[in-house]
Amino acid sequence: MSTEALTPDRILEATEEVLRRYGPGKATVVDVARALGVSHGSVYRHFRTKAALREAVTERWLEQAVTELAPLAEGPGPAAERLTTWLSALFAAKRRKAGGDPELFATYEVLIGESSAVVAEHVDHLVGQLARIIEDGHRQGEFAAPETGFTMIARAVFDATDRFHDPVHAAEWSAPDIDDAFAAVLALVLRGLRA
Amino acid sequence: MSTEALTPDRILEATEEVLRRYGPGKATVVDVARALGVSHGSVYRHFRTKAALREAVTERWLEQAVTELAPLAEGPGPAAERLTTWLSALFAAKRRKAGGDPELFATYEVLIGESSAVVAEHVDHLVGQLARIIEDGHRQGEFAAPETGFTMIARAVFDATDRFHDPVHAAEWSAPDIDDAFAAVLALVLRGLRA
Repeated sequence: MSTEALTPDRILEATEEVLRRYGPGKATVVDVARALGVSHGSVYRHFRTKAALREAVTERWLEQAVTELAPLAEGPGPAAERLTTWLSALFAAKRRKAGGDPELFATYEVLIGESSAVVAEHVDHLVGQLARIIEDGHRQGEFAAPETGFTMIARAVFDATDRFHDPVHAAEWSAPDIDDAFAAVLALVLRGLRA
Repeated sequence: MSTEALTPDRILEATEEVLRRYGPGKATVVDVARALGVSHGSVYRHFRTKAALREAVTERWLEQAVTELAPLAEGPGPAAERLTTWLSALFAAKRRKAGGDPELFATYEVLIGESSAVVAEHVDHLVGQLARIIEDGHRQGEFAAPETGFTMIARAVFDATDRFHDPVHAAEWSAPDIDDAFAAVLALVLRGLRA
């Protein structure tokens, strides 16, 4: 394979594949290079350390949800509906990832534990989308004026719905009453936001 | 030691001590009997299996919080204040346990993972106390009529504040912004409950 075709994206795809195959404990940069048919020096030209590569692949995985959810945050439409759709889509995306490929999900849980800065940034992006919906809702007279600013109230909504998106709760997502529990928390949060 | 003095409570105290010393993987009924200076048969007269003993000690540990919180649920006083005090006391109790004796806390996390029926019953007790506060609040005109019954709305409040009492979140409880985050979720939940 020529190094011209070696984009960061291709390396990250190969890294995910290697992680899936060997697990987070054993995957090395040499494995990634071998999977791509290049020297490990070529990989290091794009990602200077193994830690940087692991962070980048974690960021890529987390940010897929941010990219998917962005259009739902944009509007138009009533803010309560958009908030419902956005939170439901976030929960659905997380469940799909946890249930669809449990081993890869467990691998990323390990990586997430190593990359607190990446996770914090990811949460900021999601909270930013929520803040935008809530600010629109306030402008349209649907939601009350937040006492503490839109980011703070968005963070409270994110925290209050934590059970339905934080991977530490993944084992609960297949419980028979989880959808009712989600609906009840969502209704409580929406009442808390309304003008 | 005479077997007359061998109450379930004494056995459970000794079990906790043994768990603290050997960890959840290694502690045995023989260790517990030895710590009490009795035969393992004497322990089995009170707890028929090792699993039953582990469940009982987990239940005892969890239910300490329920006993502590019960007076706060009772009233009198405005329901919003009682709810605030109750949720703050729950968070404080959990933080104290996690921070004060991290090894024992980690041990109980393992036991909790084994005893889903005990945990479910424990959560029901806490949700029952919350439901009582919310029902009082509704009777006093402070909280709105819940669309779905008091237990369901109490469960939603419990879930929405999950980040501040579920042991899976213990690592976050020493974050510098955790008290602000708790206050923001609490304010959102109270607005959601108000008439």
